[in-house]
Amino acid sequence: MSFESLKQECLAANLDLPKTGLVDLTFGNVSVADPDRRVLAIKPSGVNYDELRSSHIVVLDFDGNLLEGDLRPSSDTPTHRHLYLRFPGIRSVVHTHSRNAVAFAQAGMDLPCLGTTHCDYFHGPVPVTREMTPEEVAGEYEWETGAVIVERFQGIDPLEIPAVLVRNHGPFAWGPSASKAVETALALEIIADMALKTLSLRAAAPAPTHLLDKHFFRKHGPSAYYGQNP
Amino acid sequence: MSFESLKQECLAANLDLPKTGLVDLTFGNVSVADPDRRVLAIKPSGVNYDELRSSHIVVLDFDGNLLEGDLRPSSDTPTHRHLYLRFPGIRSVVHTHSRNAVAFAQAGMDLPCLGTTHCDYFHGPVPVTREMTPEEVAGEYEWETGAVIVERFQGIDPLEIPAVLVRNHGPFAWGPSASKAVETALALEIIADMALKTLSLRAAAPAPTHLLDKHFFRKHGPSAYYGQNP
Amino acid sequence: MSFESLKQECLAANLDLPKTGLVDLTFGNVSVADPDRRVLAIKPSGVNYDELRSSHIVVLDFDGNLLEGDLRPSSDTPTHRHLYLRFPGIRSVVHTHSRNAVAFAQAGMDLPCLGTTHCDYFHGPVPVTREMTPEEVAGEYEWETGAVIVERFQGIDPLEIPAVLVRNHGPFAWGPSASKAVETALALEIIADMALKTLSLRAAAPAPTHLLDKHFFRKHGPSAYYGQNP
Amino acid sequence: MSFESLKQECLAANLDLPKTGLVDLTFGNVSVADPDRRVLAIKPSGVNYDELRSSHIVVLDFDGNLLEGDLRPSSDTPTHRHLYLRFPGIRSVVHTHSRNAVAFAQAGMDLPCLGTTHCDYFHGPVPVTREMTPEEVAGEYEWETGAVIVERFQGIDPLEIPAVLVRNHGPFAWGPSASKAVETALALEIIADMALKTLSLRAAAPAPTHLLDKHFFRKHGPSAYYGQNP
Repeated sequence: MSFESLKQECLAANLDLPKTGLVDLTFGNVSVADPDRRVLAIKPSGVNYDELRSSHIVVLDFDGNLLEGDLRPSSDTPTHRHLYLRFPGIRSVVHTHSRNAVAFAQAGMDLPCLGTTHCDYFHGPVPVTREMTPEEVAGEYEWETGAVIVERFQGIDPLEIPAVLVRNHGPFAWGPSASKAVETALALEIIADMALKTLSLRAAAPAPTHLLDKHFFRKHGPSAYYGQNP
Repeated sequence: MSFESLKQECLAANLDLPKTGLVDLTFGNVSVADPDRRVLAIKPSGVNYDELRSSHIVVLDFDGNLLEGDLRPSSDTPTHRHLYLRFPGIRSVVHTHSRNAVAFAQAGMDLPCLGTTHCDYFHGPVPVTREMTPEEVAGEYEWETGAVIVERFQGIDPLEIPAVLVRNHGPFAWGPSASKAVETALALEIIADMALKTLSLRAAAPAPTHLLDKHFFRKHGPSAYYGQNP
Repeated sequence: MSFESLKQECLAANLDLPKTGLVDLTFGNVSVADPDRRVLAIKPSGVNYDELRSSHIVVLDFDGNLLEGDLRPSSDTPTHRHLYLRFPGIRSVVHTHSRNAVAFAQAGMDLPCLGTTHCDYFHGPVPVTREMTPEEVAGEYEWETGAVIVERFQGIDPLEIPAVLVRNHGPFAWGPSASKAVETALALEIIADMALKTLSLRAAAPAPTHLLDKHFFRKHGPSAYYGQNP
Repeated sequence: MSFESLKQECLAANLDLPKTGLVDLTFGNVSVADPDRRVLAIKPSGVNYDELRSSHIVVLDFDGNLLEGDLRPSSDTPTHRHLYLRFPGIRSVVHTHSRNAVAFAQAGMDLPCLGTTHCDYFHGPVPVTREMTPEEVAGEYEWETGAVIVERFQGIDPLEIPAVLVRNHGPFAWGPSASKAVETALALEIIADMALKTLSLRAAAPAPTHLLDKHFFRKHGPSAYYGQNP
């Protein structure tokens, strides 16, 4: 039972991060999971993108046991594991410190839905998590980071809002494939740029709900009519 | 009666969009019309720019009947059709989600005319449309989008103000050729950047009317003296 | 008596404008003068930078008489002539619509001297001109533009403040050579970016005068000690 | 006793500055020291980065005596010397006028610690120095610049906060090697960008202390677990 295709998908998506401008230095990582096998492939910790090879990718099971790889996995691995365990239906998680999304995370503000570019990707505001307690930070910090994300999504469908802003930290995005999760992380950064500029003009009102629904369901679900037929 | 040159002009202009930085991901499209034949060529929906070929371009008549092409046309096609039907004299329409122009669309603000760069392209503010009603959004949404643009241009000459900001959405620009329409969409994005920065400094007053007229008519109309003689 | 070296210097500096990011589309021009012969070489009007050749450069005398060239000179030529006639000691003028400097011109604000990067190039704020009257705009507009610049420099040495912001329009910079004038136009754009960001943080106080003097005279005049000995 | 490896490390780091986008024109310099020999290698003054060769690098001792090189050293050399003398344990100093960090220096504001990207590099706010007096500026200005930095670090460990903002001027960063000092200067510019955007959204509260400590010590010190084992 080989992990090769999982590692290749993981490598390709990690290499896309600096190309899209989403990451500076080494601030980011992508994992890809096979939920049926309960395994995930993830970037090793602190390796430069231009040196990253398929053989560096680390494979673990959903409980965190190392299955393949000589390097330490990303220190954020427990957050990724937590999301795979609690958000069934996702196959890839992307974490970046992309600058515009970080601005909302640092301001402790949900990213409001101000226009149709936002609605095309997210069925409502992208939520920010609560401040973590000293106990959570002193404990299993990265696992607890996953816990505050899951807590924030009570009542929110992670397939309709496929990203979160971890307070004072930065965004996580997810999706059905690594390339789609990276696309969502990029869309998040773009709409955060648009929102920063919009909010500099005035206290903007959110887009009307009927417009939000229209654009989201124009691209998603059974009545979608954007793009080509599959 | 071939559509080849229309398709070539349409392809070239669509490929220019990512080069100019006006579009992120697949957020944009260009159409080119032949008003005498009442036909238009437009980008297919959801196709990546780097995969776009002339054979993908879709040709329709002004009533929306498909004339040539195997792919779905852009979902914004009815908006383009509406503009060709109601704004005689335009031959190309460009729609983008360019970030600075979107900021004004999302803020629900006309883009004010603050300086001569603006006046060189637009004879006054670039208007923002009103909010669409739930009925308009639930109905023929993209056709109604064209209708609110036309409504906003009552009393405005679309040849003197060759762009609009659709509220909570983004800009449409138009012109006598695809390359000129793309240039106008780019100029709009540049002056929106300048305006965002100007307005961050202070509540800027609009440029005086005599300066606005001077710069617009220095480049446009019978007394223009910018550029070379034709 | 050939104009070849003047035209070459003019061409090279015009081609530098898009490389530096100072100009979008065709928004800018450089002239180079030979004050002893009272002649200047300047970019033709409305020609794209990627098509610009030495043979397109237009040569005129300081009174505006055409000496060499088949194309119309830049429509801003009378402004350039005005500056050469009234600011002895300058050999090149650069005009751009660079976005950060335009923001101050459109806001009608002098660019304040907030730090040593500014002091390294300008011995005080970069001034903005007054609003032009309807009569000035309706008359010899580009010549009058030069006149309001000269009026604004009453009591200011144009060799110590080698740039101006024309209100609701954009910057002109000048210097002893085309490459130095382009460098100054670029430095102006950089410090305008820094100032926009500084002013977004708080109502910043100007740099103290003793620091301003120190940095300006560290690079300029008899006691300069920056750079290598000539 | 050769200075060749010192000069090579100094050259490579100086050439990295324009690649990272940290410097415009010639606004920046890197020095590298050998504290045991009390010598440092530094960029010459006013030389363009694209012309810089190893033979241009100037070598001096910590008292400022020239040991090797035909060109004048950077005019900021006395500031570098001051830091090597007073901050034992650092081996490289980087000075830039990077635009976002300059904004905080010009606003006279400490760069607040707003999130984990900041905490990954700095164990607290990056401090801004006080205004220099006319006497300090008129005297040994660059040496006195070092003195106000050292004064500002009373009670601050320069190994935990490896950068400073010199008021109305710009940032200095330092570290155990030239490449690490350049990385820190780049991280400083990135977090200053994030902070400018965060502060445009609201008066952001600093990150909680327990989060600050967690992220700093996740990457630094005996209990660090980010990256690979050495």
